[in-house]
Amino acid sequence: MLRLCTLLAVGGLLLAALPCRADDQDVIDYRTHVMKTMGEQLDAIGMILENKAPPDNFATHMKVLAVTATQAKKAFEPKVVGGNSKPEVWANWADFSKRLDELAANTAELATAAQHESVTAIGGKMRSALKCKSCHDTYRMPLK
Amino acid sequence: MLRLCTLLAVGGLLLAALPCRADDQDVIDYRTHVMKTMGEQLDAIGMILENKAPPDNFATHMKVLAVTATQAKKAFEPKVVGGNSKPEVWANWADFSKRLDELAANTAELATAAQHESVTAIGGKMRSALKCKSCHDTYRMPLK
Repeated sequence: MLRLCTLLAVGGLLLAALPCRADDQDVIDYRTHVMKTMGEQLDAIGMILENKAPPDNFATHMKVLAVTATQAKKAFEPKVVGGNSKPEVWANWADFSKRLDELAANTAELATAAQHESVTAIGGKMRSALKCKSCHDTYRMPLK
Repeated sequence: MLRLCTLLAVGGLLLAALPCRADDQDVIDYRTHVMKTMGEQLDAIGMILENKAPPDNFATHMKVLAVTATQAKKAFEPKVVGGNSKPEVWANWADFSKRLDELAANTAELATAAQHESVTAIGGKMRSALKCKSCHDTYRMPLK
């Protein structure tokens, strides 16, 4: 964040309409930003479910989760092994990609429901709707 | 994220309708999750502006930024000095809170514009619409 803020502040940002020239580390960094966004919002949601944070933002956390889930497929499309991703992401792209589609669809449903249902009700639905652990076990390198 | 995923997976999440019982560290953790979400999405936006990531998700990154900005005020309301926040956040709450309102309003405008304007156009508007550096200089502890 600091980096973009500094660029904006000094007015030095190059806003050229050039084709994307991402190197491998850029590809890894970009998808990491997307996954970390979901992680931060899931942590916030978890705190609300455990009564460790006020419930006021619950519906917007679900909304952010749902919108961010739609970013993941484009972020993982380039076949660049590295970061926390196992090679299986691209070896089994049809399955991985289908799981991302399901994640986007399921979080969208949860976000809509969260606009009028209780935190408790949505928390209960998350258990069957989100398969993070199963997907991470298959496609993410074990965290150190 | 792992923590919530594990809780969901083992079905051990307590979904009691209890009042929020956040201790000081919870308060700090919660607002940190909100600010880090914005940081991750701003980094992704910065990569697109520098042509280091594809522009496909640009409008949704702006949307996530805007929705997350609305979460910040509730997260900072409890007066708990610590984390990266200077005591000035609460000593000058009227100013800090006004800045958060402006952040929410300005990111909402950018997100709407991003639905039909180019990445380049929105990048140019961000420079005047977002005051992250000024606010961080005043209210955030220097990062180590």
